[in-house]
Amino acid sequence: MKILVIHGPNLAILGKREPEIYGVLTLEEINKILAENFQDVEFEFFQSNIEGEIVNKLNSLIDSDFDGVVINPGAFTHYSYAIRDAISALKIPVVEVHLSNLYTRGEREKFRQKSVIAPVCSGYIAGFGHLSYILGVEAILKLTKK
Amino acid sequence: MKILVIHGPNLAILGKREPEIYGVLTLEEINKILAENFQDVEFEFFQSNIEGEIVNKLNSLIDSDFDGVVINPGAFTHYSYAIRDAISALKIPVVEVHLSNLYTRGEREKFRQKSVIAPVCSGYIAGFGHLSYILGVEAILKLTKK
Amino acid sequence: MKILVIHGPNLAILGKREPEIYGVLTLEEINKILAENFQDVEFEFFQSNIEGEIVNKLNSLIDSDFDGVVINPGAFTHYSYAIRDAISALKIPVVEVHLSNLYTRGEREKFRQKSVIAPVCSGYIAGFGHLSYILGVEAILKLTKK
Amino acid sequence: MKILVIHGPNLAILGKREPEIYGVLTLEEINKILAENFQDVEFEFFQSNIEGEIVNKLNSLIDSDFDGVVINPGAFTHYSYAIRDAISALKIPVVEVHLSNLYTRGEREKFRQKSVIAPVCSGYIAGFGHLSYILGVEAILKLTKK
Amino acid sequence: MKILVIHGPNLAILGKREPEIYGVLTLEEINKILAENFQDVEFEFFQSNIEGEIVNKLNSLIDSDFDGVVINPGAFTHYSYAIRDAISALKIPVVEVHLSNLYTRGEREKFRQKSVIAPVCSGYIAGFGHLSYILGVEAILKLTKK
Amino acid sequence: MKILVIHGPNLAILGKREPEIYGVLTLEEINKILAENFQDVEFEFFQSNIEGEIVNKLNSLIDSDFDGVVINPGAFTHYSYAIRDAISALKIPVVEVHLSNLYTRGEREKFRQKSVIAPVCSGYIAGFGHLSYILGVEAILKLTKK
Amino acid sequence: MKILVIHGPNLAILGKREPEIYGVLTLEEINKILAENFQDVEFEFFQSNIEGEIVNKLNSLIDSDFDGVVINPGAFTHYSYAIRDAISALKIPVVEVHLSNLYTRGEREKFRQKSVIAPVCSGYIAGFGHLSYILGVEAILKLTKK
Amino acid sequence: MKILVIHGPNLAILGKREPEIYGVLTLEEINKILAENFQDVEFEFFQSNIEGEIVNKLNSLIDSDFDGVVINPGAFTHYSYAIRDAISALKIPVVEVHLSNLYTRGEREKFRQKSVIAPVCSGYIAGFGHLSYILGVEAILKLTKK
Amino acid sequence: MKILVIHGPNLAILGKREPEIYGVLTLEEINKILAENFQDVEFEFFQSNIEGEIVNKLNSLIDSDFDGVVINPGAFTHYSYAIRDAISALKIPVVEVHLSNLYTRGEREKFRQKSVIAPVCSGYIAGFGHLSYILGVEAILKLTKK
Amino acid sequence: MKILVIHGPNLAILGKREPEIYGVLTLEEINKILAENFQDVEFEFFQSNIEGEIVNKLNSLIDSDFDGVVINPGAFTHYSYAIRDAISALKIPVVEVHLSNLYTRGEREKFRQKSVIAPVCSGYIAGFGHLSYILGVEAILKLTKK
Amino acid sequence: MKILVIHGPNLAILGKREPEIYGVLTLEEINKILAENFQDVEFEFFQSNIEGEIVNKLNSLIDSDFDGVVINPGAFTHYSYAIRDAISALKIPVVEVHLSNLYTRGEREKFRQKSVIAPVCSGYIAGFGHLSYILGVEAILKLTKK
Amino acid sequence: MKILVIHGPNLAILGKREPEIYGVLTLEEINKILAENFQDVEFEFFQSNIEGEIVNKLNSLIDSDFDGVVINPGAFTHYSYAIRDAISALKIPVVEVHLSNLYTRGEREKFRQKSVIAPVCSGYIAGFGHLSYILGVEAILKLTKK
Repeated sequence: MKILVIHGPNLAILGKREPEIYGVLTLEEINKILAENFQDVEFEFFQSNIEGEIVNKLNSLIDSDFDGVVINPGAFTHYSYAIRDAISALKIPVVEVHLSNLYTRGEREKFRQKSVIAPVCSGYIAGFGHLSYILGVEAILKLTKK
Repeated sequence: MKILVIHGPNLAILGKREPEIYGVLTLEEINKILAENFQDVEFEFFQSNIEGEIVNKLNSLIDSDFDGVVINPGAFTHYSYAIRDAISALKIPVVEVHLSNLYTRGEREKFRQKSVIAPVCSGYIAGFGHLSYILGVEAILKLTKK
Repeated sequence: MKILVIHGPNLAILGKREPEIYGVLTLEEINKILAENFQDVEFEFFQSNIEGEIVNKLNSLIDSDFDGVVINPGAFTHYSYAIRDAISALKIPVVEVHLSNLYTRGEREKFRQKSVIAPVCSGYIAGFGHLSYILGVEAILKLTKK
Repeated sequence: MKILVIHGPNLAILGKREPEIYGVLTLEEINKILAENFQDVEFEFFQSNIEGEIVNKLNSLIDSDFDGVVINPGAFTHYSYAIRDAISALKIPVVEVHLSNLYTRGEREKFRQKSVIAPVCSGYIAGFGHLSYILGVEAILKLTKK
Repeated sequence: MKILVIHGPNLAILGKREPEIYGVLTLEEINKILAENFQDVEFEFFQSNIEGEIVNKLNSLIDSDFDGVVINPGAFTHYSYAIRDAISALKIPVVEVHLSNLYTRGEREKFRQKSVIAPVCSGYIAGFGHLSYILGVEAILKLTKK
Repeated sequence: MKILVIHGPNLAILGKREPEIYGVLTLEEINKILAENFQDVEFEFFQSNIEGEIVNKLNSLIDSDFDGVVINPGAFTHYSYAIRDAISALKIPVVEVHLSNLYTRGEREKFRQKSVIAPVCSGYIAGFGHLSYILGVEAILKLTKK
Repeated sequence: MKILVIHGPNLAILGKREPEIYGVLTLEEINKILAENFQDVEFEFFQSNIEGEIVNKLNSLIDSDFDGVVINPGAFTHYSYAIRDAISALKIPVVEVHLSNLYTRGEREKFRQKSVIAPVCSGYIAGFGHLSYILGVEAILKLTKK
Repeated sequence: MKILVIHGPNLAILGKREPEIYGVLTLEEINKILAENFQDVEFEFFQSNIEGEIVNKLNSLIDSDFDGVVINPGAFTHYSYAIRDAISALKIPVVEVHLSNLYTRGEREKFRQKSVIAPVCSGYIAGFGHLSYILGVEAILKLTKK
Repeated sequence: MKILVIHGPNLAILGKREPEIYGVLTLEEINKILAENFQDVEFEFFQSNIEGEIVNKLNSLIDSDFDGVVINPGAFTHYSYAIRDAISALKIPVVEVHLSNLYTRGEREKFRQKSVIAPVCSGYIAGFGHLSYILGVEAILKLTKK
Repeated sequence: MKILVIHGPNLAILGKREPEIYGVLTLEEINKILAENFQDVEFEFFQSNIEGEIVNKLNSLIDSDFDGVVINPGAFTHYSYAIRDAISALKIPVVEVHLSNLYTRGEREKFRQKSVIAPVCSGYIAGFGHLSYILGVEAILKLTKK
Repeated sequence: MKILVIHGPNLAILGKREPEIYGVLTLEEINKILAENFQDVEFEFFQSNIEGEIVNKLNSLIDSDFDGVVINPGAFTHYSYAIRDAISALKIPVVEVHLSNLYTRGEREKFRQKSVIAPVCSGYIAGFGHLSYILGVEAILKLTKK
Repeated sequence: MKILVIHGPNLAILGKREPEIYGVLTLEEINKILAENFQDVEFEFFQSNIEGEIVNKLNSLIDSDFDGVVINPGAFTHYSYAIRDAISALKIPVVEVHLSNLYTRGEREKFRQKSVIAPVCSGYIAGFGHLSYILGVEAILKLTKK
């Protein structure tokens, strides 16, 4: 079982960035928690602030042996049709996850309620802090077991 | 650990209703799978097609010993501000779940992309068939463990 | 031939309610006219002001021997996605009828021009007063004869 | 009893045009079915692809002895304010009919959900294939009998 | 003088529900204050979370001896066209009241600024906490005195 | 001085059509009043219900000796970009006139407030009944005198 | 107890202006009724058609001994952000009142449904004719008693 | 015959202000041309940059002996509901005039296409430079002659 | 190889009409250039300002031996759902062409950016002056060669 | 060097008005700071709550010896097309300034994000408290030095 | 003759990506077909998933000897104002091409109908599969020949 | 005092790009002018066409000794929520600057009026050509002096 975890823009500074919204865990700590929780899964972790590099990475999955993708597209959620197209080209399940409940924040920042990514994912999970990632991996496990 | 699982309108006919979208499992089977997967959890299952009965049920949780709610609001997702207000009045975590990826269906049925419930929930999970419920219960477990 | 006729909210007070719009016939009189006009049809008449009870009734048609449904959803026409889903789950023809021409009234009450029910019905008939019901039953007869 | 039946643009090629939507009957066959079903009615059938000719025809009804009009405005439904004005000037009942359920098709072609004609008609009937015309004529008969 | 006071959804838990918005008084206390303030008025108090039961209650006023209605439609304010139609069918004055100033809250929750009920009421009063009810009853008294 | 007066769709039935809006004068009477009021002007009067014939007529003015056009586009006002383009191609002044005040009627018929023709005319005059035509001709006279 | 009552534009001609909407009482009569009904209150009455003079008056309340303001902003309700800001700067309760039910009129004049003033007031009262003012003063009395 | 001519904001600097749009004539020259053209009319000319003073002036016409009003509301055209209400209260004809064709300018300044004044005027005339005023006075003459 | 070239409204005056936008070539010259460039193609050229005649022509292609259509719908591009339906009924490739880049012009004339025709064509080409027609014919040649 | 500084509505109460948004400095103190910082500039300071007086003042600059204008239009920013026109008529640079960052406040008060004034100014500066005025004057100095 | 061909995001996986929409040809094959069809043209082919690299490439064309650009912006079509600005800065013709008819796909994916690139291109060609590129190069050839 | 100056996409070609809008100065010249004007400030200048590299740079400021940021986001102003999030994570003042008045250009290019960056900046300055940068640095100096 091989899963790619993609962290989008501004997630490299997690823990230092508005912790009241995003929590105090760093990205490395989240990656470590994932590895510890799912010892049978071979993870690749990938973070980039550059939209096109995420598209590159997703394109590289075609004809690879990955079984699924967990992606937190960060701000790209709201406008990156390029990432949308890249996901749409894949045949393995892709799960969109978010640390915060975008609908809650959306009361002040309406644009966060719109996802251009979700329509091409298998499903999406949001609002559970770093647990969203854990639930996302479990979803992949269960979807591919079926 | 005590969890209320609420199934909204038209979910009583699950299995007989557009199985290509909603799957072939009946509601009873989903409830049974939940009970089997989480044997330490005391579940109450509640289904109603009547919005106000769901509000009644949610109001009754005030001063109860329930630890969390998993709710699939069905079509009420898109317009029941009464259920929204009832959830908003609770202090325990409430997780919104959906069998199907509403964004995918939304391409043909735009109204399904709008949730008036999500802004007052802890988080939401959609698109994983009956697994959405299982992930929802796990989310409650993890949120209340923190 | 067995047909269910559903009357939505506020139709129980027909005849007493704004007769310049809805006419002077009572609901009972309309039901009687239907029975007289179509003596070969076995009718069930159902009225409720409670959205969920109409959903219950529609859900009960699954695996029943009814041949068709004539429904006047009243004000639910404009927002009840729950009734929409319940109709969508049926395999027999469902015809939406209205006493008044919603487009005419819509000049003052714009919301009446939007039907969330019509997209899942076989067809719709509006503007002919109680004749809309008669035409609705004839439509069922002809659709099922084909 | 004298009724004018107006067929709007592209209806002359009925039967050859997207039969999965519009059915396999030709216009002549529909006209013939109408004549056979209502032998006491004197019909005039009129088809034109030219909006202004339909306006001419409707204008000619002023001071005529016609008792009603059944009109399928085709694509003009969605933008011909000129036909709307022409109908609005008449005193006899005009019934708008459509072969297909515009709301269903509207899921892919949103513009079909808007009728600029309906607000000035007595009523409208849609979704029953060629039966819509038959129901339309019956509506005229019943409206003028009252 | 006989007045019906209707409390909509989630008002049964008043006092326990977000007191910073809705105040600390319970529904019973508000009812009691009303009775004490207007000793010449015969009150009936009615609360329901079920939209259709409120429609039932309103329909029952036709041909009754009630002189007016004070209604706090709660969340139904924003989407219940069924309640709107039920009020529209009455001939006695109906006053819409709200505990909170919906426009203030509307800054965060835009949907609260829209009332589908107000257009068919005599008038509306909002923002004065439980005093809104008292002012509502006084309005009925003065309107019927004229 | 040579002026073309164009009457758009449904104006041939003037006097017989909703006289409370359009007045009791027939088109011939209006034409006659114009001729009598402006005896030095050589008029051509043109009426058509067919949009393309009005475009033909306007196209024919290129390289003609007409000094101006007064046009009442009727319902074409609101959607005929073809007439707009035809006017836009002319070098002589074109004045748009309307019998009724479109803004007043627009309260019930919103679409009447939008003119796709006005942006390419010299000016527009509306609301004065048949006097709108007289003022329109005077405007041409004064504009070409400058 | 000292209350300022502000009457906005066109209220000086009350009684002469569209009495079917605004009633037959003149402004002086309304002021007199208020003074008679609340003999313990010291009133100042202020009317102006000039937005900026109303802002001046509201600005002058800072550091004054007034206990509250009842304001009928007339047409300024719909666009005067300057009055909004002036009210927002005050610490005493301000109640917005209207003679007519703006939602009813709004069916024909949509702009009347939008209030840019209400979000910064304590509450608002509309639809009760001159009684709206009386209820407004009572609201101030009760709000300041608390 | 007595006519009031109202010039709205920024019209006092006519001739010095963007002459390519508004022409080279000053306001005094326009007033003089009007007086010379209509020697039987007693004119009052009124200019103000202050919305409320225009409302004052219009209010003063109630019970006066004026026969009509020609008003160029300038920028107030687009937002002054107070002037709208003041005109609405009058019984004599009011004609709205504009120097420029607002629809042409509207291509760059969309807001100029919306008039909140026009719905309550008898008619409107725009695009003819200072001739718009002359046509406006002629319109009053002809409307009151009828 | 047989191709129909349709020129929509106002194209008959090409060369005389706003040459800075549409170029100096007349329609006859464009037709001649096409014939010279594609000597193996049998062309029929058709121009009409009347929407319904274009529909007639398109309807006549059913069961004809034409291989493709190049159409410049002119202003009909933006609102003729009747032409859309007529194209939709054909089985041969139809290519929409425009002389000018509608998006550029759209900056001043927003309506030009919307095509109701394009969704039912094989493809579209715009902005290359008369070359758009040549590219359009080449597209047909290549599409039918495949 | 001569500069006019215009303060719009509600700025006379600066320091007393919501200091968490607008700061604690009074208008006199800001004017004094400006005078001290730019001792070579001859300032005129003008404050008014009346839109038309600001238009009067701006109109008076035509043919004056002022070199520039710094204007804080306050709430007029969002709707005063009259001030916009008055600025548009000037030939000297006009700079729009705001104490607060309107985009930040706009999260709660969306209307503040729209400026009808900015399109006719040389530039705009916002969000720096009283420093916005100082930067505004510096901008005038540098623009006129060029 | 020197032409730059730019392929936007996700085009590197052409042939492997949703072939029912994008065809079975790979990018290399398309490039090869172009080179073979236009042997006199010196091509540079450039593909990138990174928006900024495309901007870099376009910026590098300033002061280069390229004669034109054919660009398929892929998903960037719908939101990259940065690429728009980069094209806008060029003086040589730029042609936008798309493999699929965006309007057809737009029925399901509305966002694909909006191009922020087209307004600054010479023209655009869409819907002809890889032929769109060939037509695009021919367009450049013909545009630069003129 | 250490300030980072960020130039967004297409600014590297300044001076060569549409000089009537952006001026004739190159980026190097602007940087030099800044350095000369503020000799006590240590500047870092950064330009990139790649959104993610600007996010990288902004992320690197966390825990750095920079005192402020002046950023001209170019076209990213209108859609880069990733840059918005990166700025939002910083604690030092960030000032948004633009060479041109976006509201003026916005008349033709509406999208330029929307900034997704401004809501998270301290303030913004636009319309003064290269002076916008100088005013931006002065703003930082004054904001950090406080």
